Amino acid sequence: MSSPAAPASHNSQQCLKMAARSLLFPIIIIIITSTTIIFTPPTLASQPLNHLSSKRAPRFLSKHSYPIKTQLEEQQQYRYESKYFYQQLDHFSFLNLPKFPQRYLINTDHWAGPERRGPIFLYCGNEGDIEWFAVNTGFVWEIAPLFGAMVLFPEHRYYGESLPYGSREEAYKNASTLSYLTAEQALADFAVLITDLKRNLSAQACPVVLFGGSYGGMLAAWMRLKYPHVAIGALASSAPILQFEDIVPPETFYNIVSNDFKRESTSCFNTIKESWDALVSEGLKKNGLVQLTKTFHLCRELKSTEDLANWLDSAYSYLAMVDYPYPSSFMMPLPGCPIREVCKRIDGCPDGTSILERIFEGISIYYNYTGELHCFELDDDPHGLDGWNWQACTEMVMPMSSSHNASMFPTYDFNYSSYQEGCWEEFGVIPRPRWITTEFGGQDIKTALETFGSNIIFSNGLLDPWSGGSVLQNISETVVALVTEQGAHHIDLRPSTPEDPDWLVEQRETEVKLIKGWIDGYLKEKKTAFSM
Amino acid sequence: MSSPAAPASHNSQQCLKMAARSLLFPIIIIIITSTTIIFTPPTLASQPLNHLSSKRAPRFLSKHSYPIKTQLEEQQQYRYESKYFYQQLDHFSFLNLPKFPQRYLINTDHWAGPERRGPIFLYCGNEGDIEWFAVNTGFVWEIAPLFGAMVLFPEHRYYGESLPYGSREEAYKNASTLSYLTAEQALADFAVLITDLKRNLSAQACPVVLFGGSYGGMLAAWMRLKYPHVAIGALASSAPILQFEDIVPPETFYNIVSNDFKRESTSCFNTIKESWDALVSEGLKKNGLVQLTKTFHLCRELKSTEDLANWLDSAYSYLAMVDYPYPSSFMMPLPGCPIREVCKRIDGCPDGTSILERIFEGISIYYNYTGELHCFELDDDPHGLDGWNWQACTEMVMPMSSSHNASMFPTYDFNYSSYQEGCWEEFGVIPRPRWITTEFGGQDIKTALETFGSNIIFSNGLLDPWSGGSVLQNISETVVALVTEQGAHHIDLRPSTPEDPDWLVEQRETEVKLIKGWIDGYLKEKKTAFSM
Repeated sequence: MSSPAAPASHNSQQCLKMAARSLLFPIIIIIITSTTIIFTPPTLASQPLNHLSSKRAPRFLSKHSYPIKTQLEEQQQYRYESKYFYQQLDHFSFLNLPKFPQRYLINTDHWAGPERRGPIFLYCGNEGDIEWFAVNTGFVWEIAPLFGAMVLFPEHRYYGESLPYGSREEAYKNASTLSYLTAEQALADFAVLITDLKRNLSAQACPVVLFGGSYGGMLAAWMRLKYPHVAIGALASSAPILQFEDIVPPETFYNIVSNDFKRESTSCFNTIKESWDALVSEGLKKNGLVQLTKTFHLCRELKSTEDLANWLDSAYSYLAMVDYPYPSSFMMPLPGCPIREVCKRIDGCPDGTSILERIFEGISIYYNYTGELHCFELDDDPHGLDGWNWQACTEMVMPMSSSHNASMFPTYDFNYSSYQEGCWEEFGVIPRPRWITTEFGGQDIKTALETFGSNIIFSNGLLDPWSGGSVLQNISETVVALVTEQGAHHIDLRPSTPEDPDWLVEQRETEVKLIKGWIDGYLKEKKTAFSM
Repeated sequence: MSSPAAPASHNSQQCLKMAARSLLFPIIIIIITSTTIIFTPPTLASQPLNHLSSKRAPRFLSKHSYPIKTQLEEQQQYRYESKYFYQQLDHFSFLNLPKFPQRYLINTDHWAGPERRGPIFLYCGNEGDIEWFAVNTGFVWEIAPLFGAMVLFPEHRYYGESLPYGSREEAYKNASTLSYLTAEQALADFAVLITDLKRNLSAQACPVVLFGGSYGGMLAAWMRLKYPHVAIGALASSAPILQFEDIVPPETFYNIVSNDFKRESTSCFNTIKESWDALVSEGLKKNGLVQLTKTFHLCRELKSTEDLANWLDSAYSYLAMVDYPYPSSFMMPLPGCPIREVCKRIDGCPDGTSILERIFEGISIYYNYTGELHCFELDDDPHGLDGWNWQACTEMVMPMSSSHNASMFPTYDFNYSSYQEGCWEEFGVIPRPRWITTEFGGQDIKTALETFGSNIIFSNGLLDPWSGGSVLQNISETVVALVTEQGAHHIDLRPSTPEDPDWLVEQRETEVKLIKGWIDGYLKEKKTAFSM
């Protein structure tokens, strides 16, 4: 058995002893080259989107992180039944389309029932298998018994088992079959499911509280705006509802990722910042791609430097999202404070180690913390039709740039034309970049939230790059922002652990208190209404 | 030139001198017969929907009342440009569908412009040609100059000139082409149009105030709930947003129509109530249909008693809607207080005039007030695909019954199964009777309006049969009900006339004051926000 590629030891033998050289002048040239090669909008010919995809929309969820069976089995503390509800494929037209089965997980063990108006806790499923979210949303399971609440995890259409047209293959066949994968349809799914379930259970008077993380948090917040009659409140964790058009600066996301590295180590930040040019420079050499394949222990020979750049870029972004203070395995099995560990590796290599070798050492924390992998597969199907890519190419147009100074990534200015071209090339669809703000409110969403919203918690950790597009200030007495300096992507929704820092314990206590306030207020109002 | 059929004279020669006979026992039998024949759900065979259509959904607008060119020309005091905006056919999916031109009428003569934040007054076009609504919504035109407001009348998709697929014929071809005729799509049309116009005019900061009558009023109210960020307030006149499921008793509509007649004359009410049996009885006789054809001066020989019953039923319902205190020609040219005139005719016939002849005398007020018609065409294309019928067969399922005692119409209990069968037969579509309340709120809409709504006026006249399904009580400080005892269908939106009664003048003054309050409040808030 060969030894694993870059296991999680601190003194890797692969750090080479090479002297650092001054590369100031070459760097400038290389930056230009790299900018041109890596981040220029693609021609519509050969390699259309691969090198754009990560800039197009840093994903909420990594393709590498789909639920691992063993992980689910390990977490069998959450018991639920899987049920299916047949939904309209287009709620907003009457085209004769086949209904599809929406899966939902349900647990009524602790439910106080309809007579006692036991609440219904509903997690707004997002872009993945709902079981994965169920396992990673321990908060809802843990607090449900305190409230006598039913727990519901409906799956988002086109993900997991909730597939139109009978199979993933058919559902993802082309732009026509994919066309009903939109947020508005997903919200309507939730509204119809809740309404129907409540009717069947004679639970019309039971208050519904929504939960959601990331895109699911956006859905939870939007549910409060669009279906205020369906649920009484929402905990929207890490929900970047402002990451559209020019509401927030497009550099925000990558600046936050970069800062997460810088705060751990300036030299680590600098190494990564310099690495892109080193990468391009290496790739341009004769046999450069072969050398890069070796340096990064790739399973197959590298076809283009961009593929590798994207692979690295993704890892940094995800690391920022899951920079939790304790070991976790949401996207990948990782140590606590994984960015610190990555930087320790990068910085800790012996003098003379090349930039790229340092990068490899660092990145292995993300891609191979368990040390089980012997080689790495880059995105093996970058052009495969993919749910989130479709959503990014239709409604979820979140402009992303990378600034020259604050970012450790290559400079890149968001270019909508090439974005649109890429979407046309990949899916045969034209995005509607202004639709989300028309439908849900945009620039002035604070006024809308203040005037029309109530009972929403926007919780955010500032380490999370998505926090930049989220609501970080209290809007009103009932639309509140809970911001934690040390928090990452929807950490508050995760299962509690013995290592939870005090601020996290306190944040969750506040959330429980606010939710209790919503329910008490609702029950009081109902009582008054009935006694009138 | 032959003399017109039943002109508007009070002493028609056609009143026959027949003695009134006691028909108590026969009546009971005939009632049962009539109920069976006229209102039983149809088999799916021969005459599928004709006799159901009026019960399926009393229309807001009569098929007989489409805009008359001369009427439009007469009213040229309202100047506007007609423009077209290309809309997505399905806002909520990304199916590759052809865009369609939405017509909108625009007048900026009095607009204060973007710098002065001149308001935008937008009438939510409903189920008809937008020019017709523009002409009949004088209120908006009259108050716009007071506010320095732009006036916008966007047309509802699938009506007037706003036709998908290039023509009415293509748009109304079948269930597939009709499938995008829904309220949600219409709301999205408005939202997209407003957003785009404001951007093009640099008028993002200009407040939008919505107006709407009838179904247009429902749209205006729903816009406030679904797109609160798009407009700051809505005057929803005669908007029966509660006329769904079992929120209000299904008898409400016909009871109000009946009461409108009863308040004018009990004998008139009784004559109409008795007439259905007389009609059935006559129709069952040998040559009965020929005789009915003569009695009612029909242009073509009557094929079934039900066709005639529907024709009469419609007239009574529309008369109740347009029971305005002054002469008008919204649906038909009519005298002021037309129900009073109808009842005068019915009651004023000489003793011995038969019930059916009295009915004919009365109904001629509605169908032939100008006395120009020599004979009457019943609905000449009862099976033709029709926009509102489509909407009634998809989302707008408004259960309607007719009670034995309070109603002057034959007893009828709403039967959803036969309703659904009828829709399948007519359009090949299955209604979604619970969808509207899921999407916009139902039983508990008052809570939703109280908690999430603001700046909505629900104005209603109690003569209007649609008032029974409307909001008739103040919900909050900013969601208010203006109810007038003597008002009919959205009378407040009509052009002012010298004959306007005081209560109407006062109602409009209140509306202007409330709208002014919304705009002042908005501008004050903006000022504060800017000076911060």
